[in-house]
Amino acid sequence: MIPKDHPRYESLMLRARIVDAYKKGILADSGMIAHGRGEAFDYLIGEKTTEPARKAERAGAAALLLAENPVISVNGNTTALAAEWVVKLAEALGAKVEINLFYRTASRVEKVGEALKAAGAKVVLGVENEEKGIIEGLEGPRARASLEGVCSADVVLVPLEDGDRAEALVANGKTVVTVDLNPLSRTATTSTVTIVDNVVRALPNLIQEVMELKNCSENELKGILEDFSNDKNLEESLEIVSRAYTGDV
Amino acid sequence: MIPKDHPRYESLMLRARIVDAYKKGILADSGMIAHGRGEAFDYLIGEKTTEPARKAERAGAAALLLAENPVISVNGNTTALAAEWVVKLAEALGAKVEINLFYRTASRVEKVGEALKAAGAKVVLGVENEEKGIIEGLEGPRARASLEGVCSADVVLVPLEDGDRAEALVANGKTVVTVDLNPLSRTATTSTVTIVDNVVRALPNLIQEVMELKNCSENELKGILEDFSNDKNLEESLEIVSRAYTGDV
Repeated sequence: MIPKDHPRYESLMLRARIVDAYKKGILADSGMIAHGRGEAFDYLIGEKTTEPARKAERAGAAALLLAENPVISVNGNTTALAAEWVVKLAEALGAKVEINLFYRTASRVEKVGEALKAAGAKVVLGVENEEKGIIEGLEGPRARASLEGVCSADVVLVPLEDGDRAEALVANGKTVVTVDLNPLSRTATTSTVTIVDNVVRALPNLIQEVMELKNCSENELKGILEDFSNDKNLEESLEIVSRAYTGDV
Repeated sequence: MIPKDHPRYESLMLRARIVDAYKKGILADSGMIAHGRGEAFDYLIGEKTTEPARKAERAGAAALLLAENPVISVNGNTTALAAEWVVKLAEALGAKVEINLFYRTASRVEKVGEALKAAGAKVVLGVENEEKGIIEGLEGPRARASLEGVCSADVVLVPLEDGDRAEALVANGKTVVTVDLNPLSRTATTSTVTIVDNVVRALPNLIQEVMELKNCSENELKGILEDFSNDKNLEESLEIVSRAYTGDV
Protein backbone atom coordinates (compact mmCIF):
# COMPACT_ATOMS: atom_id res chain seq x y z
CA MET A 1 0.00 0.00 0.00
CA ILE A 2 1.24 3.44 -0.92
CA PRO A 3 0.51 5.98 1.86
CA LYS A 4 -1.72 8.85 0.65
CA ASP A 5 0.61 11.49 2.04
CA HIS A 6 3.61 10.24 0.05
CA PRO A 7 4.92 13.18 -2.01
CA ARG A 8 4.78 11.02 -5.14
CA TYR A 9 1.48 9.29 -4.35
CA GLU A 10 -0.19 9.99 -7.71
CA SER A 11 2.81 8.89 -9.71
CA LEU A 12 3.28 5.74 -7.61
CA MET A 13 -0.40 4.81 -7.96
CA LEU A 14 -0.14 5.05 -11.75
CA ARG A 15 3.00 2.94 -11.65
CA ALA A 16 1.16 0.32 -9.57
CA ARG A 17 -1.61 0.21 -12.20
CA ILE A 18 0.97 -0.34 -14.93
CA VAL A 19 2.70 -3.15 -13.02
CA ASP A 20 -0.68 -4.74 -12.34
CA ALA A 21 -1.65 -4.53 -16.04
CA TYR A 22 1.70 -6.03 -17.04
CA LYS A 23 1.18 -8.96 -14.70
CA LYS A 24 -2.32 -9.48 -16.09
CA GLY A 25 -0.92 -9.69 -19.63
CA ILE A 26 -2.46 -6.40 -20.81
CA LEU A 27 0.95 -4.84 -21.48
CA ALA A 28 3.99 -5.98 -23.45
CA ASP A 29 7.43 -5.62 -21.78
CA SER A 30 7.98 -2.43 -23.70
CA GLY A 31 4.76 -1.00 -22.23
CA MET A 32 6.30 -1.00 -18.77
CA ILE A 33 9.44 0.69 -20.06
CA ALA A 34 7.38 3.20 -22.06
CA HIS A 35 5.63 4.13 -18.83
CA GLY A 36 8.99 5.00 -17.31
CA ARG A 37 9.75 7.31 -20.23
CA GLY A 38 6.38 8.94 -19.65
CA GLU A 39 7.19 9.42 -15.94
CA ALA A 40 10.39 11.28 -16.88
CA PHE A 41 8.69 13.60 -19.36
CA ASP A 42 5.77 14.23 -17.00
CA TYR A 43 8.24 15.15 -14.26
CA LEU A 44 9.77 17.71 -16.63
CA ILE A 45 6.46 19.50 -17.21
CA GLY A 46 5.75 19.53 -13.47
CA GLU A 47 3.22 16.65 -13.50
CA LYS A 48 0.34 19.04 -14.23
CA THR A 49 -1.64 20.23 -17.25
CA THR A 50 0.26 23.18 -18.70
CA GLU A 51 -1.35 26.12 -20.48
CA PRO A 52 -0.37 24.92 -23.97
CA ALA A 53 -1.70 21.43 -23.11
CA ARG A 54 -5.03 22.95 -22.12
CA LYS A 55 -5.19 24.82 -25.45
CA ALA A 56 -4.43 21.58 -27.32
CA GLU A 57 -7.14 19.79 -25.34
CA ARG A 58 -9.65 22.45 -26.45
CA ALA A 59 -8.55 22.16 -30.08
CA GLY A 60 -8.61 18.35 -29.87
CA ALA A 61 -12.16 18.44 -28.48
CA ALA A 62 -13.23 20.76 -31.33
CA ALA A 63 -11.70 18.39 -33.92
CA LEU A 64 -13.46 15.39 -32.38
CA LEU A 65 -16.81 17.22 -32.22
CA LEU A 66 -16.48 18.14 -35.91
CA ALA A 67 -15.95 14.48 -36.88
CA GLU A 68 -18.49 12.42 -38.78
CA ASN A 69 -16.93 9.16 -37.64
CA PRO A 70 -14.69 9.81 -34.61
CA VAL A 71 -12.68 6.84 -33.34
CA ILE A 72 -10.62 6.46 -30.16
CA SER A 73 -7.76 4.05 -30.79
CA VAL A 74 -6.36 2.57 -27.59
CA ASN A 75 -3.36 0.46 -26.64
CA GLY A 76 -2.45 -1.42 -23.45
CA ASN A 77 -0.99 1.56 -21.59
CA THR A 78 -3.97 3.82 -22.27
CA THR A 79 -6.29 1.03 -21.16
CA ALA A 80 -4.27 0.33 -18.00
CA LEU A 81 -4.15 3.98 -17.01
CA ALA A 82 -7.42 5.41 -18.21
CA ALA A 83 -9.97 2.83 -19.44
CA GLU A 84 -12.82 4.58 -17.58
CA TRP A 85 -12.01 7.92 -19.20
CA VAL A 86 -11.80 6.36 -22.65
CA VAL A 87 -15.31 4.97 -22.21
CA LYS A 88 -16.70 8.28 -20.86
CA LEU A 89 -15.11 10.29 -23.66
CA ALA A 90 -16.45 7.87 -26.28
CA GLU A 91 -19.95 8.28 -24.80
CA ALA A 92 -19.70 12.06 -24.73
CA LEU A 93 -18.66 12.10 -28.40
CA GLY A 94 -20.62 9.17 -29.75
CA ALA A 95 -17.23 7.81 -30.80
CA LYS A 96 -16.14 4.23 -31.41
CA VAL A 97 -13.42 2.56 -29.36
CA GLU A 98 -10.85 0.42 -31.19
CA ILE A 99 -7.93 -1.64 -29.92
CA ASN A 100 -4.64 -1.13 -31.75
CA LEU A 101 -1.58 -2.74 -30.19
CA PHE A 102 2.00 -2.17 -31.29
CA TYR A 103 2.96 -5.72 -30.32
CA ARG A 104 -0.31 -7.39 -31.23
CA THR A 105 -1.10 -10.85 -29.87
CA ALA A 106 -4.54 -12.45 -29.70
CA SER A 107 -4.20 -12.88 -25.95
CA ARG A 108 -3.37 -9.21 -25.31
CA VAL A 109 -6.19 -8.04 -27.60
CA GLU A 110 -8.58 -10.20 -25.61
CA LYS A 111 -7.35 -8.90 -22.26
CA VAL A 112 -7.42 -5.25 -23.33
CA GLY A 113 -10.95 -5.83 -24.63
CA GLU A 114 -11.99 -7.33 -21.28
CA ALA A 115 -10.52 -4.36 -19.40
CA LEU A 116 -12.39 -1.90 -21.64
CA LYS A 117 -15.66 -3.82 -21.17
CA ALA A 118 -15.11 -3.91 -17.42
CA ALA A 119 -14.76 -0.12 -17.59
CA GLY A 120 -18.18 0.08 -19.29
CA ALA A 121 -17.44 -0.11 -23.03
CA LYS A 122 -20.37 -1.67 -24.91
CA VAL A 123 -18.71 -2.22 -28.30
CA VAL A 124 -14.98 -2.63 -28.83
CA LEU A 125 -13.53 -2.71 -32.35
CA GLY A 126 -10.16 -4.07 -33.45
CA VAL A 127 -10.79 -7.48 -31.89
CA GLU A 128 -9.70 -10.80 -33.36
CA ASN A 129 -12.85 -12.18 -35.05
CA GLU A 130 -13.34 -9.10 -37.20
CA GLU A 131 -12.81 -8.44 -40.91
CA LYS A 132 -9.44 -6.76 -41.19
CA GLY A 133 -8.79 -3.39 -42.79
CA ILE A 134 -5.38 -2.05 -43.69
CA ILE A 135 -3.76 1.34 -43.16
CA GLU A 136 -1.81 2.12 -46.34
CA GLY A 137 1.90 2.75 -45.84
CA LEU A 138 2.35 0.34 -42.94
CA GLU A 139 3.42 -3.29 -43.00
CA GLY A 140 2.65 -6.44 -41.05
CA PRO A 141 0.33 -6.56 -38.04
CA ARG A 142 0.85 -2.83 -37.41
CA ALA A 143 -0.99 -2.01 -40.65
CA ARG A 144 -4.12 -3.62 -39.31
CA ALA A 145 -7.12 -1.50 -38.35
CA SER A 146 -10.87 -1.94 -38.14
CA LEU A 147 -12.90 -1.27 -41.32
CA GLU A 148 -15.74 0.33 -39.35
CA GLY A 149 -13.28 2.11 -37.06
CA VAL A 150 -9.94 3.71 -37.91
CA CYS A 151 -10.16 2.79 -41.63
CA SER A 152 -13.32 4.82 -42.21
CA ALA A 153 -12.73 7.45 -39.49
CA ASP A 154 -12.21 11.09 -40.42
CA VAL A 155 -10.87 12.03 -36.98
CA VAL A 156 -8.93 9.64 -34.72
CA LEU A 157 -7.80 10.13 -31.15
CA VAL A 158 -4.68 7.98 -30.72
CA PRO A 159 -3.14 8.48 -27.25
CA LEU A 160 0.42 7.16 -26.76
CA GLU A 161 0.75 6.22 -30.43
CA ASP A 162 3.88 5.03 -32.26
CA GLY A 163 5.48 7.46 -34.75
CA ASP A 164 5.09 5.22 -37.82
CA ARG A 165 1.39 4.77 -37.25
CA ALA A 166 0.74 8.43 -36.51
CA GLU A 167 2.53 9.39 -39.73
CA ALA A 168 0.61 6.82 -41.78
CA LEU A 169 -2.73 7.98 -40.36
CA VAL A 170 -1.94 11.58 -41.31
CA ALA A 171 -0.77 10.43 -44.77
CA ASN A 172 -4.12 8.63 -45.16
CA GLY A 173 -5.90 11.96 -44.76
CA LYS A 174 -7.10 11.55 -41.16
CA THR A 175 -7.21 14.35 -38.63
CA VAL A 176 -5.02 12.89 -35.86
CA VAL A 177 -5.37 13.99 -32.23
CA THR A 178 -2.73 12.46 -29.97
CA VAL A 179 -1.58 12.55 -26.36
CA ASP A 180 2.20 12.40 -26.02
CA LEU A 181 4.39 13.69 -23.18
CA ASN A 182 7.46 14.02 -25.42
CA PRO A 183 6.98 17.16 -27.51
CA LEU A 184 9.92 16.13 -29.71
CA SER A 185 8.61 12.69 -30.69
CA ARG A 186 7.66 11.87 -34.28
CA THR A 187 4.08 11.27 -33.13
CA ALA A 188 4.00 14.71 -31.50
CA THR A 189 5.44 16.55 -34.48
CA THR A 190 3.38 14.84 -37.22
CA SER A 191 -0.08 14.76 -35.61
CA THR A 192 -2.74 17.41 -36.30
CA VAL A 193 -3.30 18.20 -32.61
CA THR A 194 -0.77 17.01 -30.02
CA ILE A 195 -1.70 17.17 -26.35
CA VAL A 196 1.52 17.20 -24.29
CA ASP A 197 -0.04 15.93 -21.09
CA ASN A 198 -0.37 12.74 -19.07
CA VAL A 199 -3.19 10.62 -20.50
CA VAL A 200 -4.80 10.46 -17.04
CA ARG A 201 -5.21 14.24 -17.11
CA ALA A 202 -5.71 14.69 -20.86
CA LEU A 203 -8.77 12.43 -21.19
CA PRO A 204 -10.79 14.00 -18.33
CA ASN A 205 -9.83 17.43 -19.68
CA LEU A 206 -10.99 16.41 -23.17
CA ILE A 207 -14.33 15.31 -21.69
CA GLN A 208 -14.69 18.66 -19.96
CA GLU A 209 -13.89 20.55 -23.18
CA VAL A 210 -16.33 18.39 -25.16
CA MET A 211 -19.06 19.23 -22.63
CA GLU A 212 -18.28 22.93 -22.86
CA LEU A 213 -18.09 23.03 -26.67
CA LYS A 214 -20.84 20.62 -27.64
CA ASN A 215 -23.42 23.34 -28.25
CA CYS A 216 -21.08 25.39 -30.44
CA SER A 217 -21.88 25.79 -34.13
CA GLU A 218 -19.76 24.06 -36.76
CA ASN A 219 -18.25 27.44 -37.64
CA GLU A 220 -17.29 28.16 -34.04
CA LEU A 221 -15.62 24.76 -33.75
CA LYS A 222 -13.78 25.28 -37.05
CA GLY A 223 -12.63 28.65 -35.78
CA ILE A 224 -11.11 27.08 -32.65
CA LEU A 225 -9.29 24.51 -34.78
CA GLU A 226 -8.06 27.11 -37.28
CA ASP A 227 -6.71 29.31 -34.49
CA PHE A 228 -4.65 26.38 -33.19
CA SER A 229 -1.12 25.84 -34.50
CA ASN A 230 0.34 22.50 -33.47
CA ASP A 231 3.92 23.62 -34.17
CA LYS A 232 3.52 26.77 -32.10
CA ASN A 233 1.86 24.80 -29.32
CA LEU A 234 4.72 22.25 -29.24
CA GLU A 235 7.21 25.10 -29.05
CA GLU A 236 5.36 26.48 -26.04
CA SER A 237 5.57 23.07 -24.35
CA LEU A 238 9.26 22.83 -25.15
CA GLU A 239 9.81 26.19 -23.58
CA ILE A 240 8.17 25.04 -20.35
CA VAL A 241 10.48 22.03 -20.18
CA SER A 242 13.55 24.08 -20.94
CA ARG A 243 12.56 26.62 -18.27
CA ALA A 244 12.21 23.74 -15.79
CA TYR A 245 15.74 22.77 -16.74
CA THR A 246 17.30 26.19 -16.45
CA GLY A 247 15.56 26.83 -13.15
CA ASP A 248 13.38 29.71 -14.37
CA VAL A 249 10.22 28.31 -12.82
CA MET B 1 16.26 -10.33 -33.05
CA ILE B 2 16.88 -6.62 -33.43
CA PRO B 3 18.45 -5.83 -36.85
CA LYS B 4 21.85 -4.13 -36.50
CA ASP B 5 20.90 -1.34 -38.88
CA HIS B 6 17.88 -0.30 -36.83
CA PRO B 7 18.30 3.41 -35.99
CA ARG B 8 17.69 2.66 -32.32
CA TYR B 9 19.71 -0.59 -32.20
CA GLU B 10 21.81 0.32 -29.15
CA SER B 11 18.85 1.50 -27.14
CA LEU B 12 16.77 -1.55 -28.08
CA MET B 13 19.61 -3.91 -27.14
CA LEU B 14 19.84 -2.34 -23.68
CA ARG B 15 16.09 -2.63 -23.33
CA ALA B 16 16.27 -6.31 -24.23
CA ARG B 17 18.90 -6.83 -21.51
CA ILE B 18 16.64 -5.15 -18.97
CA VAL B 19 13.62 -7.27 -19.94
CA ASP B 20 15.77 -10.38 -19.78
CA ALA B 21 17.07 -9.44 -16.30
CA TYR B 22 13.53 -8.73 -15.12
CA LYS B 23 12.39 -12.16 -16.30
CA LYS B 24 15.34 -13.79 -14.53
CA GLY B 25 14.36 -12.11 -11.25
CA ILE B 26 17.35 -9.74 -11.13
CA LEU B 27 15.15 -6.64 -11.28
CA ALA B 28 12.12 -5.48 -9.33
CA ASP B 29 9.11 -4.12 -11.27
CA SER B 30 10.31 -0.63 -10.57
CA GLY B 31 13.67 -1.46 -12.18
CA MET B 32 12.01 -1.90 -15.55
CA ILE B 33 10.14 1.40 -15.18
CA ALA B 34 13.31 3.14 -13.98
CA HIS B 35 15.00 2.00 -17.17
CA GLY B 36 12.30 3.78 -19.17
CA ARG B 37 12.98 7.00 -17.27
CA GLY B 38 16.66 6.56 -18.09
CA GLU B 39 15.84 6.10 -21.79
CA ALA B 40 13.98 9.42 -21.80
CA PHE B 41 16.80 11.34 -20.11
CA ASP B 42 19.43 9.69 -22.32
CA TYR B 43 17.43 10.71 -25.38
CA LEU B 44 17.50 14.31 -24.14
CA ILE B 45 21.31 14.40 -23.95
CA GLY B 46 21.56 12.84 -27.41
CA GLU B 47 22.47 9.30 -26.23
CA LYS B 48 26.17 10.13 -26.13
CA THR B 49 28.75 11.18 -23.56
CA THR B 50 28.60 14.96 -23.32
CA GLU B 51 31.57 17.19 -22.54
CA PRO B 52 30.50 17.84 -18.94
CA ALA B 53 29.94 14.08 -18.46
CA ARG B 54 33.48 13.40 -19.65
CA LYS B 55 34.82 15.96 -17.15
CA ALA B 56 32.83 14.31 -14.37
CA GLU B 57 34.17 10.90 -15.40
CA ARG B 58 37.73 12.25 -15.09
CA ALA B 59 36.99 13.74 -11.66
CA GLY B 60 35.25 10.54 -10.57
CA ALA B 61 38.25 8.47 -11.65
CA ALA B 62 40.56 10.80 -9.68
CA ALA B 63 38.37 10.45 -6.56
CA LEU B 64 38.36 6.66 -6.86
CA LEU B 65 42.13 6.52 -7.38
CA LEU B 66 42.65 8.65 -4.24
CA ALA B 67 40.58 6.24 -2.13
CA GLU B 68 42.03 3.96 0.52
CA ASN B 69 39.02 1.66 0.43
CA PRO B 70 37.05 2.26 -2.78
CA VAL B 71 33.77 0.37 -3.13
CA ILE B 72 31.47 -0.02 -6.13
CA SER B 73 27.91 -0.43 -4.93
CA VAL B 74 25.66 -2.04 -7.54
CA ASN B 75 21.94 -2.66 -7.93
CA GLY B 76 19.95 -4.82 -10.34
CA ASN B 77 19.87 -2.31 -13.21
CA THR B 78 23.61 -1.66 -13.11
CA THR B 79 24.24 -5.39 -13.05
CA ALA B 80 21.83 -6.06 -15.91
CA LEU B 81 23.32 -3.34 -18.10
CA ALA B 82 27.00 -3.34 -17.21
CA ALA B 83 28.14 -6.25 -15.00
CA GLU B 84 31.29 -6.78 -17.13
CA TRP B 85 32.30 -3.12 -16.80
CA VAL B 86 31.73 -3.16 -13.05
CA VAL B 87 34.11 -6.10 -12.74
CA LYS B 88 36.75 -4.50 -15.00
CA LEU B 89 36.59 -1.18 -13.18
CA ALA B 90 36.89 -2.92 -9.81
CA GLU B 91 39.98 -4.73 -11.07
CA ALA B 92 41.54 -1.54 -12.44
CA LEU B 93 40.99 0.20 -9.09
CA GLY B 94 41.49 -2.69 -6.68
CA ALA B 95 37.97 -1.83 -5.50
CA LYS B 96 35.41 -4.04 -3.80
CA VAL B 97 32.02 -4.79 -5.36
CA GLU B 98 28.95 -4.73 -3.12
CA ILE B 99 25.29 -5.45 -3.83
CA ASN B 100 22.82 -2.88 -2.53
CA LEU B 101 19.23 -3.25 -3.65
CA PHE B 102 16.46 -0.73 -3.07
CA TYR B 103 13.84 -3.49 -2.85
CA ARG B 104 16.03 -6.11 -1.21
CA THR B 105 14.98 -9.75 -1.25
CA ALA B 106 17.25 -12.74 -0.60
CA SER B 107 16.37 -14.17 -4.02
CA ARG B 108 17.28 -11.01 -5.92
CA VAL B 109 20.53 -10.63 -3.97
CA GLU B 110 21.43 -14.18 -4.92
CA LYS B 111 20.62 -13.62 -8.60
CA VAL B 112 22.49 -10.33 -8.81
CA GLY B 113 25.46 -12.04 -7.14
CA GLU B 114 25.35 -14.86 -9.68
CA ALA B 115 25.25 -12.38 -12.57
CA LEU B 116 28.28 -10.52 -11.16
CA LYS B 117 30.20 -13.77 -10.71
CA ALA B 118 29.29 -14.83 -14.25
CA ALA B 119 30.79 -11.53 -15.39
CA GLY B 120 34.04 -12.41 -13.61
CA ALA B 121 33.69 -10.98 -10.08
CA LYS B 122 35.71 -13.03 -7.58
CA VAL B 123 34.34 -11.57 -4.35
CA VAL B 124 30.94 -9.95 -3.98
CA LEU B 125 29.97 -8.17 -0.76
CA GLY B 126 26.48 -7.34 0.49
CA VAL B 127 25.29 -10.92 0.24
CA GLU B 128 22.92 -12.62 2.63
CA ASN B 129 25.20 -14.69 4.91
CA GLU B 130 27.31 -11.71 5.93
CA GLU B 131 27.49 -9.68 9.13
CA LYS B 132 25.33 -6.62 8.58
CA GLY B 133 26.51 -3.03 8.90
CA ILE B 134 24.22 -0.03 9.03
CA ILE B 135 24.34 3.33 7.27
CA GLU B 136 23.29 5.93 9.82
CA GLY B 137 20.30 8.04 8.86
CA LEU B 138 18.48 5.32 6.95
CA GLU B 139 15.85 2.88 8.15
CA GLY B 140 14.86 -0.70 7.44
CA PRO B 141 16.54 -2.89 4.83
CA ARG B 142 17.76 0.19 2.94
CA ALA B 143 20.08 1.07 5.83
CA ARG B 144 21.95 -2.16 5.35
CA ALA B 145 25.49 -2.17 3.97
CA SER B 146 28.56 -4.36 4.23
CA LEU B 147 30.97 -3.73 7.12
CA GLU B 148 34.02 -4.41 4.95
CA GLY B 149 32.47 -2.56 2.02
CA VAL B 150 30.38 0.62 2.01
CA CYS B 151 30.49 0.99 5.83
CA SER B 152 34.28 1.35 5.91
CA ALA B 153 34.73 2.88 2.45
CA ASP B 154 36.07 6.40 2.04
CA VAL B 155 34.98 6.65 -1.61
CA VAL B 156 31.93 4.89 -3.07
CA LEU B 157 30.81 4.63 -6.65
CA VAL B 158 27.03 4.21 -6.58
CA PRO B 159 25.57 4.19 -10.09
CA LEU B 160 21.78 4.64 -10.39
CA GLU B 161 21.37 5.25 -6.65
CA ASP B 162 18.28 6.34 -4.78
CA GLY B 163 18.24 9.90 -3.38
CA ASP B 164 17.84 8.92 0.29
CA ARG B 165 20.82 6.61 0.17
CA ALA B 166 23.03 9.05 -1.70
CA GLU B 167 22.21 11.75 0.87
CA ALA B 168 22.93 9.42 3.78
CA LEU B 169 26.27 8.32 2.31
CA VAL B 170 27.36 11.96 1.94
CA ALA B 171 26.12 12.72 5.48
CA ASN B 172 28.27 9.79 6.71
CA GLY B 173 31.34 11.54 5.33
CA LYS B 174 31.85 9.45 2.20
CA THR B 175 33.01 10.84 -1.12
CA VAL B 176 30.14 9.75 -3.38
CA VAL B 177 30.59 9.29 -7.13
CA THR B 178 27.33 8.54 -8.92
CA VAL B 179 26.01 7.96 -12.44
CA ASP B 180 22.57 9.52 -12.98
CA LEU B 181 20.97 10.66 -16.23
CA ASN B 182 18.64 13.10 -14.49
CA PRO B 183 20.74 16.15 -13.53
CA LEU B 184 17.89 17.44 -11.37
CA SER B 185 17.54 14.33 -9.18
CA ARG B 186 18.33 14.38 -5.48
CA THR B 187 21.10 11.83 -6.07
CA ALA B 188 22.61 14.07 -8.76
CA THR B 189 22.51 17.24 -6.70
CA THR B 190 23.79 15.76 -3.40
CA SER B 191 26.64 13.54 -4.62
CA THR B 192 30.28 14.67 -4.67
CA VAL B 193 30.78 13.83 -8.34
CA THR B 194 27.74 13.19 -10.56
CA ILE B 195 28.28 11.67 -13.98
CA VAL B 196 25.26 12.54 -16.17
CA ASP B 197 25.71 9.69 -18.62
CA ASN B 198 24.31 6.27 -19.41
CA VAL B 199 25.94 3.68 -17.14
CA VAL B 200 26.93 1.63 -20.21
CA ARG B 201 29.07 4.56 -21.40
CA ALA B 202 30.09 5.93 -17.99
CA LEU B 203 31.75 2.75 -16.71
CA PRO B 204 33.98 2.12 -19.78
CA ASN B 205 34.88 5.83 -19.73
CA LEU B 206 35.76 5.60 -16.03
CA ILE B 207 38.04 2.64 -16.78
CA GLN B 208 39.76 4.63 -19.52
CA GLU B 209 40.24 7.61 -17.20
CA VAL B 210 41.58 5.35 -14.43
CA MET B 211 44.12 3.91 -16.88
CA GLU B 212 45.19 7.37 -17.97
CA LEU B 213 45.43 8.82 -14.46
CA LYS B 214 46.83 5.86 -12.54
CA ASN B 215 50.42 7.05 -12.69
CA CYS B 216 49.55 10.57 -11.53
CA SER B 217 50.81 11.74 -8.13
CA GLU B 218 48.40 12.21 -5.23
CA ASN B 219 48.74 15.98 -5.65
CA GLU B 220 47.87 15.82 -9.33
CA LEU B 221 44.77 13.75 -8.59
CA LYS B 222 43.75 16.13 -5.80
CA GLY B 223 44.19 18.99 -8.26
CA ILE B 224 41.77 17.39 -10.73
CA LEU B 225 39.21 16.86 -8.00
CA GLU B 226 39.59 20.41 -6.63
CA ASP B 227 39.15 21.90 -10.09
CA PHE B 228 35.84 20.05 -10.46
CA SER B 229 32.63 21.73 -9.32
CA ASN B 230 29.67 19.35 -9.27
CA ASP B 231 27.12 22.19 -9.25
CA LYS B 232 28.74 23.88 -12.23
CA ASN B 233 29.00 20.56 -14.06
CA LEU B 234 25.30 19.80 -13.48
CA GLU B 235 24.43 23.26 -14.81
CA GLU B 236 26.39 22.49 -17.96
CA SER B 237 24.44 19.24 -18.40
CA LEU B 238 21.16 21.08 -17.85
CA GLU B 239 22.11 23.55 -20.51
CA ILE B 240 22.70 20.78 -23.01
CA VAL B 241 19.25 19.35 -22.32
CA SER B 242 17.59 22.72 -22.56
CA ARG B 243 19.39 23.44 -25.85
CA ALA B 244 18.11 20.10 -27.16
CA TYR B 245 14.65 21.29 -26.24
CA THR B 246 14.84 24.73 -27.77
CA GLY B 247 16.37 23.33 -30.95
CA ASP B 248 19.72 25.12 -30.61
CA VAL B 249 21.72 21.99 -31.34
